[in-house]
Amino acid sequence: MTLLTLQRSDDSPRAAPRIIGIVAKPGSSVAEESVHRVLRLLGTLGVEALVEEETAKHYESLQRYPKFRLDMDPPDRIIVVGGDGTLLRTFMLLSRPDSVVMGIRAGKRGFLLDVEQYEIEDRVRDFVAGEYRVEEYFRAEVFRGEKRLGCILNDAVIMTKMSKMVKLSVYIDGERAMGIDGDGVIVSTTVGSSAYSLSAGGPVVDPRVDVFVVTPMNPVQLFLRPIIAPPDSIIEVEVTPGSNELYLSLDGQIMVDLGVGDIVTVKRCEEPVRIARFKWWENYYERLYTRLLTYW
Amino acid sequence: MTLLTLQRSDDSPRAAPRIIGIVAKPGSSVAEESVHRVLRLLGTLGVEALVEEETAKHYESLQRYPKFRLDMDPPDRIIVVGGDGTLLRTFMLLSRPDSVVMGIRAGKRGFLLDVEQYEIEDRVRDFVAGEYRVEEYFRAEVFRGEKRLGCILNDAVIMTKMSKMVKLSVYIDGERAMGIDGDGVIVSTTVGSSAYSLSAGGPVVDPRVDVFVVTPMNPVQLFLRPIIAPPDSIIEVEVTPGSNELYLSLDGQIMVDLGVGDIVTVKRCEEPVRIARFKWWENYYERLYTRLLTYW
Amino acid sequence: MTLLTLQRSDDSPRAAPRIIGIVAKPGSSVAEESVHRVLRLLGTLGVEALVEEETAKHYESLQRYPKFRLDMDPPDRIIVVGGDGTLLRTFMLLSRPDSVVMGIRAGKRGFLLDVEQYEIEDRVRDFVAGEYRVEEYFRAEVFRGEKRLGCILNDAVIMTKMSKMVKLSVYIDGERAMGIDGDGVIVSTTVGSSAYSLSAGGPVVDPRVDVFVVTPMNPVQLFLRPIIAPPDSIIEVEVTPGSNELYLSLDGQIMVDLGVGDIVTVKRCEEPVRIARFKWWENYYERLYTRLLTYW
Amino acid sequence: MTLLTLQRSDDSPRAAPRIIGIVAKPGSSVAEESVHRVLRLLGTLGVEALVEEETAKHYESLQRYPKFRLDMDPPDRIIVVGGDGTLLRTFMLLSRPDSVVMGIRAGKRGFLLDVEQYEIEDRVRDFVAGEYRVEEYFRAEVFRGEKRLGCILNDAVIMTKMSKMVKLSVYIDGERAMGIDGDGVIVSTTVGSSAYSLSAGGPVVDPRVDVFVVTPMNPVQLFLRPIIAPPDSIIEVEVTPGSNELYLSLDGQIMVDLGVGDIVTVKRCEEPVRIARFKWWENYYERLYTRLLTYW
Repeated sequence: MTLLTLQRSDDSPRAAPRIIGIVAKPGSSVAEESVHRVLRLLGTLGVEALVEEETAKHYESLQRYPKFRLDMDPPDRIIVVGGDGTLLRTFMLLSRPDSVVMGIRAGKRGFLLDVEQYEIEDRVRDFVAGEYRVEEYFRAEVFRGEKRLGCILNDAVIMTKMSKMVKLSVYIDGERAMGIDGDGVIVSTTVGSSAYSLSAGGPVVDPRVDVFVVTPMNPVQLFLRPIIAPPDSIIEVEVTPGSNELYLSLDGQIMVDLGVGDIVTVKRCEEPVRIARFKWWENYYERLYTRLLTYW
Repeated sequence: MTLLTLQRSDDSPRAAPRIIGIVAKPGSSVAEESVHRVLRLLGTLGVEALVEEETAKHYESLQRYPKFRLDMDPPDRIIVVGGDGTLLRTFMLLSRPDSVVMGIRAGKRGFLLDVEQYEIEDRVRDFVAGEYRVEEYFRAEVFRGEKRLGCILNDAVIMTKMSKMVKLSVYIDGERAMGIDGDGVIVSTTVGSSAYSLSAGGPVVDPRVDVFVVTPMNPVQLFLRPIIAPPDSIIEVEVTPGSNELYLSLDGQIMVDLGVGDIVTVKRCEEPVRIARFKWWENYYERLYTRLLTYW
Repeated sequence: MTLLTLQRSDDSPRAAPRIIGIVAKPGSSVAEESVHRVLRLLGTLGVEALVEEETAKHYESLQRYPKFRLDMDPPDRIIVVGGDGTLLRTFMLLSRPDSVVMGIRAGKRGFLLDVEQYEIEDRVRDFVAGEYRVEEYFRAEVFRGEKRLGCILNDAVIMTKMSKMVKLSVYIDGERAMGIDGDGVIVSTTVGSSAYSLSAGGPVVDPRVDVFVVTPMNPVQLFLRPIIAPPDSIIEVEVTPGSNELYLSLDGQIMVDLGVGDIVTVKRCEEPVRIARFKWWENYYERLYTRLLTYW
Repeated sequence: MTLLTLQRSDDSPRAAPRIIGIVAKPGSSVAEESVHRVLRLLGTLGVEALVEEETAKHYESLQRYPKFRLDMDPPDRIIVVGGDGTLLRTFMLLSRPDSVVMGIRAGKRGFLLDVEQYEIEDRVRDFVAGEYRVEEYFRAEVFRGEKRLGCILNDAVIMTKMSKMVKLSVYIDGERAMGIDGDGVIVSTTVGSSAYSLSAGGPVVDPRVDVFVVTPMNPVQLFLRPIIAPPDSIIEVEVTPGSNELYLSLDGQIMVDLGVGDIVTVKRCEEPVRIARFKWWENYYERLYTRLLTYW
């Protein structure tokens, strides 16, 4: 049997970075300690370390380091320490599309971050030496009416506020694909297919397939099923008359209130994100199910 | 093939009521007009009509009628005009367990109300003449900690506030039956099995079977399935550490905020409710699916 | 929190049996060895052991023991060694409704058999001493047309022969409850709810609730959901015109070909079965999910 | 809102065909009559009509026409009359990849055939005049071990023979993606996603996305979900030790027995099929759900 190989990655030789930015999940002693391990090693390797402004606010011990902002002029190498939420927030704010991000897991969850606690020093050394592969991930751009809200890596969730039925119409490239009376709908990317959408009944999408997954949430229309839509399609969700209160959640990071008549548009984001991978995706399905089965 | 017969109903002869109370859904011209049809006929038949205080507040045209409150000293015959929500609210407030309630549907939904617009006069005449069958429906009593919150006909829903993962443990008679990391859980009665629980993946329960249905909502634990629990079991839902914000919704009528450490207890309510039925449940499944399929 | 207690069991003192019958799964060296451990101990305890005729045919080493048949004049105490299939076959043939059966698990599966390899001697001693609880389990009686086919503990499965669409109508007490164009339908008891029906999308039924679960198999009618029917209802499945070839499987033990016009009737079997339990069902849900999660 | 446009179609001008082949579903008077309407019109238009050998065998009235075989030297324009099964059989046998096929629906089902009875003459005229669009559909090639079995348009189904549990391992590009103990697995193309896979819990795939859908059938492993795999991946299904009897069904047309150790391989078929479309896919989702909802 052949080995799975990813097409959309690049492993050309690269120069060592002079500066690396660090972002961490707030309120976690594991994250804090990991950051200090990273800082110590970067010092030894002669790489300048900047700490994200927002991160520094949450940790006394990080306040004396030079700062940077993700949305202003971030470095082109970034290390994220935490869970999926921290990574999602980083990419949502990151203003520099060519930055490469490395993820260190601190905590139980964190499917997208592949460096474990025990290997922090080895992988940071690899990151500085350029010994990794860059994977690009397809993202979605979300609008409320004409207003651009940003790009997301996982999902846009349109959901009831008070468990009262909302009413939605979903259009794919202008064609009505679903009428939903229920809790809401999830529009997910390939990456997001293993997150919220999976719990709501969506399929697992192989990381090499670029698609949108449109997953209805607890609809009265029992015959509805998730839809796999092309990555270049335009998905519009309209809030229709009679709907109860609802909101839009972007990657679980930003919440926006919606009302009847609102149209949320989701389409391919022009800028993918770039993640450094030290282990290949050779075990995607095993990792997926192992993670899920640790929950009981 | 034999005909379905309900065991838990009574059709003994009964005296004509002197007083009938009326409850209606607010803000519906169809409901308002139906109420006036009922009032006109009751006048002709020599039955005194009282209008519920809360209902009267919403309709100018009903303010001159004598009033009553559901939670004080309600009549023993009540006519509800509206949808399932109006009926659920009526039973939640109704302080008199022997009251018999008749339901007139005004609006699209209203699975529990079986009198249609075209037959209002015929069925009200039957109601006054005692020409109906009384069906008793099993309800659930809900507590938050030690505090009794009331009895529900459909369901107790424990759900995330901001689409962020909540963490719950469900116990049935003291045994841990589910650990849920997801949107929440629905504890439904037999009647409620065709409502929210059905949309969330629960089974249809025949109206003659008294059970609780415990339906997890979009759990990370993909292997979880709805559980059918005995009607005399005690179901406890505990909010466990690490849970995000959540609330408890009773029959979609009352919302209560919950937090980590809260325990919601659901058990059989001592008092069932009593609904007048003019048509038998002979077509339960056909009615169920016909209703669902009108939604596309 | 209170402990779960089963109502339908009996633990009155009982006399030691003089004779015990033994049934074992064919072709398993683990089962064969277990039977010899049982035989040795029964000899010591002065209890006469009979080996089932059919079981003896499969094991050279068992042929010299006195025999019995399940369908003729079986003893009132029986020990079954194997998996769920062996137990299901035993109950299907067993002609004596008051026999008490004890189950020893030999092999990976065997959710219904609760005695493990390591404790065989202790539990057989208990069985002889009368130190156990008798649990009674509700069964279903199945007919094809007028012909009685027998009683089942788990499920009656009506299923396509060659993966071509079959057409069925399901009636509950004479009312049409489902029209199925698909792979077939499962009519399961409470015990069977954790077997095939669960894999096909049915709910878990608490062992203390007596119901039928009617689970459609891969229907074109995507809106269908499993139905929970009363234990005293009569469930009829009719093969309708246009159906492809199909068969009826009883507890996975007996296969009967069906054709258009056939009606399969399922109702409560007058005789429940009786299983000796040494450990209480206090951990039903934990056991259920633990078993399921060993499959990855 | 923009209109959905298909990328993979061609509508260049084309010469009128001199010869058209006709294939029909056997044993249908509607199909027979439709074929005669087509034959009459083709005569008027001066186009020679050939009837498929196998089709002619089933209809007395068609035996006098000149014949052709799908697998020998078929014409480059073919009209299929019947349901999806007839179309699937046609493409399975068709030896000429550049043939364009037009489908006339005769009977209730037939999602893939878009010409209705009332418009036969208009659409056959369009077909002769070259007034249509050619849609190409991605297919899958299936092997048992080294032996090539053919190309399929809908799905390869690996399924239990006697409703007894089968054991399978699914590999995607050499990586183990599922272990299934259950009824089997469906490997479906995009087109097939709206057929068997949908009933078994798979998602709807937009016709413009080329993917495989791997849908487990009633697995004991309740946590499994359908997987969306790349169209260029190699999917291998291995029958593992302990499996009960099973078979492989190709588009519901060909059945092959399988046994432990067998490996079924599915990959992209080099030759897509070509269907003439007169109505655009502008209503794909509406057509899909409308069809499903006629089943109750």
